[in-house]
Amino acid sequence: MNNKQKDLTLYNAHFIDGLVKAGVESAVISPGSRSTPMALLLAEHPDIKVYVQIDERSAAFFALGLAKASGKPTALLCTSGTAAANYLPAVAEAKNARIPLIVLTSDRPHELREVGAPQSIDQNRLYGTHAKWFAEMALPDAEEHMLRYVRITAAKAVYIAKQSPAGPVHLNFPFREPLLPQYDGLFERLEIEDLPAIHLSEGMRMLPKQEIEVLAAIFKEKEKGLIVCGEQQSEGFEKAVVELAEKLGYPILADPLSGLRSGEAHSHLIIDSYDAFLRNEKIKQEASFDIVLRFGAMPVSKALTQFIGRHDAIVHCVVDSGGGWREPIGVATHMLAADESAFCQALSARLNEQRDRSSWLENWMHINQAAKTIMQSVGEHAELDEGKLFYEVLQRLPDHSALFVGNSMPIRDLDSFFFTDERRIRLLANRGANGIDGLVSSALGAAAVTSPLYLIVGDLSLFHDLNGLLAAKLNGINITVIVINNNGGGIFSYLPQAGEQKHFELLFGTPADLDFSHAAKLYGGDYERVTDLASLDNSMAKAAKGDGLLIIEAITDRAKNVVAHRELWEKVSQEMNKLTAGEGFWK
Amino acid sequence: MNNKQKDLTLYNAHFIDGLVKAGVESAVISPGSRSTPMALLLAEHPDIKVYVQIDERSAAFFALGLAKASGKPTALLCTSGTAAANYLPAVAEAKNARIPLIVLTSDRPHELREVGAPQSIDQNRLYGTHAKWFAEMALPDAEEHMLRYVRITAAKAVYIAKQSPAGPVHLNFPFREPLLPQYDGLFERLEIEDLPAIHLSEGMRMLPKQEIEVLAAIFKEKEKGLIVCGEQQSEGFEKAVVELAEKLGYPILADPLSGLRSGEAHSHLIIDSYDAFLRNEKIKQEASFDIVLRFGAMPVSKALTQFIGRHDAIVHCVVDSGGGWREPIGVATHMLAADESAFCQALSARLNEQRDRSSWLENWMHINQAAKTIMQSVGEHAELDEGKLFYEVLQRLPDHSALFVGNSMPIRDLDSFFFTDERRIRLLANRGANGIDGLVSSALGAAAVTSPLYLIVGDLSLFHDLNGLLAAKLNGINITVIVINNNGGGIFSYLPQAGEQKHFELLFGTPADLDFSHAAKLYGGDYERVTDLASLDNSMAKAAKGDGLLIIEAITDRAKNVVAHRELWEKVSQEMNKLTAGEGFWK
Repeated sequence: MNNKQKDLTLYNAHFIDGLVKAGVESAVISPGSRSTPMALLLAEHPDIKVYVQIDERSAAFFALGLAKASGKPTALLCTSGTAAANYLPAVAEAKNARIPLIVLTSDRPHELREVGAPQSIDQNRLYGTHAKWFAEMALPDAEEHMLRYVRITAAKAVYIAKQSPAGPVHLNFPFREPLLPQYDGLFERLEIEDLPAIHLSEGMRMLPKQEIEVLAAIFKEKEKGLIVCGEQQSEGFEKAVVELAEKLGYPILADPLSGLRSGEAHSHLIIDSYDAFLRNEKIKQEASFDIVLRFGAMPVSKALTQFIGRHDAIVHCVVDSGGGWREPIGVATHMLAADESAFCQALSARLNEQRDRSSWLENWMHINQAAKTIMQSVGEHAELDEGKLFYEVLQRLPDHSALFVGNSMPIRDLDSFFFTDERRIRLLANRGANGIDGLVSSALGAAAVTSPLYLIVGDLSLFHDLNGLLAAKLNGINITVIVINNNGGGIFSYLPQAGEQKHFELLFGTPADLDFSHAAKLYGGDYERVTDLASLDNSMAKAAKGDGLLIIEAITDRAKNVVAHRELWEKVSQEMNKLTAGEGFWK
Repeated sequence: MNNKQKDLTLYNAHFIDGLVKAGVESAVISPGSRSTPMALLLAEHPDIKVYVQIDERSAAFFALGLAKASGKPTALLCTSGTAAANYLPAVAEAKNARIPLIVLTSDRPHELREVGAPQSIDQNRLYGTHAKWFAEMALPDAEEHMLRYVRITAAKAVYIAKQSPAGPVHLNFPFREPLLPQYDGLFERLEIEDLPAIHLSEGMRMLPKQEIEVLAAIFKEKEKGLIVCGEQQSEGFEKAVVELAEKLGYPILADPLSGLRSGEAHSHLIIDSYDAFLRNEKIKQEASFDIVLRFGAMPVSKALTQFIGRHDAIVHCVVDSGGGWREPIGVATHMLAADESAFCQALSARLNEQRDRSSWLENWMHINQAAKTIMQSVGEHAELDEGKLFYEVLQRLPDHSALFVGNSMPIRDLDSFFFTDERRIRLLANRGANGIDGLVSSALGAAAVTSPLYLIVGDLSLFHDLNGLLAAKLNGINITVIVINNNGGGIFSYLPQAGEQKHFELLFGTPADLDFSHAAKLYGGDYERVTDLASLDNSMAKAAKGDGLLIIEAITDRAKNVVAHRELWEKVSQEMNKLTAGEGFWK
């Protein structure tokens, strides 16, 4: 090994071992030349699993899904130039969704930058405000203090990425030719088990006792309270929030991504059909509350957001362990940067007795049950429309499975048709920026660490990240992709744009006329077309075998779909009018 | 029209009309909600052609290709969030390749930013240093001075984007709901033909006479000179540089993208096989020169770059109308920010007489002819290998056609096998950052304004931008995509990485096993498999009919391909040794 090769080899090896010691278990690599030293050493390290995806945009979303499902920081590596630019959509999503990504871009050395050299763009702070941290790395150097620097930087990158709110960090590595390290058997020779590691830990944010006491006193006084839960990652939260709700006698309006609608959290306090009944004008007007306690991201339901925004509660607390300003409604009175579980426990402890069950709580449970019954009647529809399809697929998911849902319509249908359930079904989505991009890859990344995994997406989302499917084949991952193909942008039929005849199909409907059986063939997957419950049963049985990629396609109709949904909501609304008739209901 | 709708409508309408008056003829739109007012008004404006592509990454490359082929600034529009982030790869390419793009992103209004509202990321300076100019636009406002502001900003955006070096500009538009403008018939009512326009013009950069005289005196003294031409956009350059070369008696080493190898420029001074014979050690050592005059981007040939870098010429001029530092070799003595054509004309005018034909020039023409003859013998290969395929396809291109080539291997094969030709074939590629991304879309964008257009790409490039194919169907564009499918990253077989058995296929070869007949079916295209000259003839005849999308796939072998190329180069090298034997050749 000459000196240059030694510099290249040891510098990269210690960096990678530094990542591993800091808890990185997986790396997603896209092929390229400039990234060669890092790629070969990642493939060589015994304690890191390497995944390959050729399209860097998909690769980055794959890493995001993997990090999301595993809760562990995931590394990403690409070559120089526009390759690195392709990471931006996933980096932006990771920043908003708080996913720890270690983005490693290789770059030309300084003398080849901005002088017209090939495959070279300005990679300095390439992701702008969307990376939590950026560092331009030193050139490879095997001096002892430089190996220490690069190990420390690896640990620091993980430390920053994981700290609440978690997010992506970006390290840019200049590499000078020649690019080949001497990797074979290197990590054994380095005796990596004896190499030093830095212990990384982060304390939990806890509010001072006095403040909890003040809050407890307020909560004790208020009977008409609501707990609202969105997506969050605090450990033990489900149990803690249910305990708190029981003491307070408040209903929990639980977004599907809160984790509260399924599995152990299962509680009669959980309200799962609010999106349907909060569309009712009478309820919106009359169910006025005194206090709101919000955890996690804003729920997907627009009806809920509008309902909360309509009433100025005396107290409206937003609790977020990440200290983010997750408050698009503009009504918060308390912004509390505190761990969600710890907050619930501390508050519960200050509330000595459980409140007697109030009519307030009974009302919420009552109308929720009534609305739910109507929403569940979607199963009785003669036609396998989008609502029924969603409902029936959900019925057929096995215990301990994971479901990744697309944005736009699927996440809304999940909200409508996923009711509290004892099965432990992990619900995942990309709700950082709610893009229709990268969903296939995010689901596949999740499927790499949690199985079985089902993805439900619309046709435009599947198209947008069709390249993502290649990762199933390249990395031997099992996934079932259920595509609801309504030939275009279904959500626009719900928006005011739907009223515009002129230009509507050109700009919003955008029918792409895609038959995904060809996509299945292209990516070596199986394909099933679903037209009725019998074929759905067959398809889901095939999915249960979990053998590589399976695409299940159902053809639906955008126009009929809006009508069917609106009919259900209208039924719910009429039932609500009946139930809450008279002046006594909310008293 | 209420006041809000009036603000939204007139503000966007005047902006769009401002773009049109400044010379924007096309806009590429991706569907979305936030961008509704701008999208509807773009579709409504009588003088702007709207193209639709659902995938924003592909949309941006489509706009880039369209702007590249038309020479006109092209607008791009998307919704908020990661949609906008998907533009970055094309924006980075446009910056490096000097393509004028008007990037319009719609955004949430200020009160919905960074508060956890959906589909919202920080779009401020989203493209960092990769946009020439960024502006955060005012909220829609129909006050007269605000309509003037928005018209002026449209003109300014085009003015900046087009100025040499051209590039992308980014305007971020906050839109508040409701988002529907009153568009139907609006532009007639506005009587846009009478609305004011700002005349935009840019002067040419000309060196002072005295400096030209000093340079002319130097050039007169030096017999052993080289003119090197890469991709450039100066009008009339081909003619001007050939005239100058004739006066100086210098060979012109012309990159295929210089435009000099085909059509009218056709001259015996043009050297087209330097990439083959400059691999010969003897020539590299002995053909030493005194002076180099370079125009445009650095040519693709690494052999040429290394050859130039080896000799310190007394004078090494880099002429660039954009004033860029296009000098990765580190040997320039003169950096001249001047229009290429004007420079050639001015210098020619100062060189009174034409130099007698020197042995220097004769030698270059002689070895070029010898090398070319050997390279052309690829046509005699029994097997339809990559070299032969490339050569045979090129033979079959019709006059006045355009050829877009992929990066990695295709651009290098173009360099090897596209010889000076009287046919006017327009050669296009994305050489700003040389990415393998966005090539299908760039070619389709070009095909929207120049026809017939052929794209030659490798399988990984076609895979990377497979989504791009949708634009052919959505916008009714004809294109022939010729995919050389060697099942993976063919270029790595030429690099030192090829020596690494371990991890090679995983990290570099990356065989994806794609059969693109399925892609053709998915996107409603025709498909032909080429295995010999007869099937190539048939396929090219089908292509000549120009009916939508046609994919022509040829299966090749990565390993054999390297061997075949190296055999050709070795033959050339041996011939060069023979030709230049003895000490007298370069005297």
